[in-house]
Amino acid sequence: MSEELAKILERAEEAIANRDGSEVLQLCEDLHYADLAELFEDIDQDGREFLTETLGAEKFSEILAELPDTLVEKTLDSFEPEEQREILDSLPDDDRVDILQDVSDSKRRDFLELLDEDKQEDTRTLLRYDEETAGGRMTTHIGKIGAHMTVKDAIEHLRGDQESTMTLARIFVVNDEGKLVGKIRLRDLAFNAWNVSVQSLVQDVDHSILATADQEDAAQMISRYDMLILPVVDESNRLLGVITADDAFEILEEESTEDIEKGAGISGDQSEETYLNTSITSHFKRRCGWLVILAFLAILSGFVMMRFEQTLTEIYLLALFLPMVVAAGGNTGGQASTMVIRAMALGELDPEDTMQVAWKELRLGLLLGGLLAFLIGLFAVFAPPALQFTLPSGTNFTQFGCTVAIALGAQVATSTLIGALLPIGARAVRIDPAVIAAPAITTIVDVSGMVIYFTVARSILGV
Amino acid sequence: MSEELAKILERAEEAIANRDGSEVLQLCEDLHYADLAELFEDIDQDGREFLTETLGAEKFSEILAELPDTLVEKTLDSFEPEEQREILDSLPDDDRVDILQDVSDSKRRDFLELLDEDKQEDTRTLLRYDEETAGGRMTTHIGKIGAHMTVKDAIEHLRGDQESTMTLARIFVVNDEGKLVGKIRLRDLAFNAWNVSVQSLVQDVDHSILATADQEDAAQMISRYDMLILPVVDESNRLLGVITADDAFEILEEESTEDIEKGAGISGDQSEETYLNTSITSHFKRRCGWLVILAFLAILSGFVMMRFEQTLTEIYLLALFLPMVVAAGGNTGGQASTMVIRAMALGELDPEDTMQVAWKELRLGLLLGGLLAFLIGLFAVFAPPALQFTLPSGTNFTQFGCTVAIALGAQVATSTLIGALLPIGARAVRIDPAVIAAPAITTIVDVSGMVIYFTVARSILGV
Repeated sequence: MSEELAKILERAEEAIANRDGSEVLQLCEDLHYADLAELFEDIDQDGREFLTETLGAEKFSEILAELPDTLVEKTLDSFEPEEQREILDSLPDDDRVDILQDVSDSKRRDFLELLDEDKQEDTRTLLRYDEETAGGRMTTHIGKIGAHMTVKDAIEHLRGDQESTMTLARIFVVNDEGKLVGKIRLRDLAFNAWNVSVQSLVQDVDHSILATADQEDAAQMISRYDMLILPVVDESNRLLGVITADDAFEILEEESTEDIEKGAGISGDQSEETYLNTSITSHFKRRCGWLVILAFLAILSGFVMMRFEQTLTEIYLLALFLPMVVAAGGNTGGQASTMVIRAMALGELDPEDTMQVAWKELRLGLLLGGLLAFLIGLFAVFAPPALQFTLPSGTNFTQFGCTVAIALGAQVATSTLIGALLPIGARAVRIDPAVIAAPAITTIVDVSGMVIYFTVARSILGV
Repeated sequence: MSEELAKILERAEEAIANRDGSEVLQLCEDLHYADLAELFEDIDQDGREFLTETLGAEKFSEILAELPDTLVEKTLDSFEPEEQREILDSLPDDDRVDILQDVSDSKRRDFLELLDEDKQEDTRTLLRYDEETAGGRMTTHIGKIGAHMTVKDAIEHLRGDQESTMTLARIFVVNDEGKLVGKIRLRDLAFNAWNVSVQSLVQDVDHSILATADQEDAAQMISRYDMLILPVVDESNRLLGVITADDAFEILEEESTEDIEKGAGISGDQSEETYLNTSITSHFKRRCGWLVILAFLAILSGFVMMRFEQTLTEIYLLALFLPMVVAAGGNTGGQASTMVIRAMALGELDPEDTMQVAWKELRLGLLLGGLLAFLIGLFAVFAPPALQFTLPSGTNFTQFGCTVAIALGAQVATSTLIGALLPIGARAVRIDPAVIAAPAITTIVDVSGMVIYFTVARSILGV
């Protein structure tokens, strides 16, 4: 955020605190509704009521569309029915549907009743699509013309709708049955003679998406193919609406936050609220699940260690370097899984690439493990006397150090491979790779690291 | 990727392997250049040469713009100078500049010489901006009209340039000095009478960006304000070019991959190559740095543990549950840092929010730690006899279990706070929070966990 914007927001917060209506109005005039929504989120309940009253229903409608899900119902409820009607009526249909998806069923019925019949009908149709699908995200206000029109017809047709049409960067051409037959650009209309037929200007539509498809697929298509507008069709290729680049930004941001959070063992739907506005209860609920599961799984590793009781009591100093060996496995496994999960998210890895991934990570694991073992081995041989510690009789410091180094190398090599293959395995059994990776790797690598460590120690040191 | 597309790509790979030129041409006709670039990356060197020859220079130019940095020079070099000229000439200027930024200095000079003088001049100007700035990313082929024109002048002016203009979704209006005075939509021209003055239709430009600004700021502005096109200006507000939504998608994807990778301790610039096409050497280089640093830092934790030698030898069983306590700290610290880093990346957290974050995470840490301590405590009290193990005289199983539980609770509470505050601290001293988080948290939390664990054990069990 620019400093200038931060300053305006701060002054606006002050003006709201002072209940200075005219100052608020003046400051808000320069702000985009995305900024206004942020301002609204940052102030307390009384401030919010003051701000909504000051701005009025119509100006507020665009802000409402930018608010997090959890604030929508409460905020909309604070208006009189007539204002609610005004807000809902002035919104583009995709935003209206978004808002109605965020409120309770009974409220949704009430709010729908406020609209005139045409809009009710349109909105109900859109509400049938799941919120996370292309259909649930699309707008129906699009530039649409018939294939039989001339440039003159087309311009006149579009002119009539122009104020309610989201974008005319692409205009879609449909046949008499409403099926998508192509697209033309507004410039093709603007720069051509009026008697030219639309048919002769129409270009093929290379990409469209089914209304029932996942919204993420739609967003990735827009991003991959450098599109501004993606047409949404039904099973018979009838044009239903479009998804625009700004929807795609929102979808991709949501999905990316979700993946990052899952990777850290944070469960549940990503909240649209900002970090600071999310309640302690909701933070707690999303974080406690994996923490508890992992803590109990980690007890397992304690019981695994018990099997090496004898080794451990004979050379308790082995315990000192166990955390390093285990942690190095966690780090390299984490790197490998991060790269593989990211590559899968960008659509680079197909299931048949598994062997290639395994071969690559096996070599990498051996290289990384070899490097670490070599460095720790060097350290063991050349450690300054001050750092050398006394070991039980029969074990010398260098031998002990090399034992740790070999165990470390083996652990890093194994963990790299595990980290890369676990997400692929998860996807194969239809578990979200992002959710399995970090938690599962931690546990599996901890246990395997201990077994490797003590097995190496037993065979080299003979304890 | 859709199954249909995957099938076409597979068939194309086969056709290339069989050197079946006409089949390749036919299959490639349906493919978008983003798909063709993927195909090109997936095949071997001989296949690539065959594909470039088959497609020809002009068709290949768009593919070249989509290739990863590391492939650009080699690929362009494989063409004859006349073809190179054709490729570079047919590209939009932002893509041409991107490509020239990816080749060596001497090659860049050679390639520039191939262009006609006007293009050379334009390209040199753009090359002056750093690759990661708005100026380095912009295109100069924009719809630009003078404030004094009429609708008729404007349409005629734009019509002349229409084939080289990237997008006319927004047309920018400049004064005689080239300074940005506003924007109009193509529809405003198309739907108005020819004698209307541009001046009367012009709208304010709410957002523009300096050419020297970071490309990420430009992308976030486009995403935040639902823009299709962002004008890029110099210090005197002269219009230099635009950044479009498709650039923003690319920038945001790159930045997000970079942040994810940094968080896993993967260093260096994110490679534009796919995971499978990145060489082992380059994977190795990017991953070994943090692994080695962390392994040596982890040795520290071994020396910390040595200070508790007496406690450990007296009740060696304490070693069994140390990994669990340490890992739980890593997990909760990781969750907290992930949430805070994400909130910072989305611009939700300002430095003055630090106390709020600390207070929130302190309460969360106590809740999460309390929950875990309670559950492990329950487990200790009610553990089935089969799981109970013998302890040295003077310590009973329940007392031992409660010690572990209390240490766990304290460790989780501390680590939650550390995990949340470290990224904020990193930003305060201008270190990228994404790079510091995971590695630093692992080490700090490991050491603090050990100290907490043994201190609690000493005071409760009296060893």
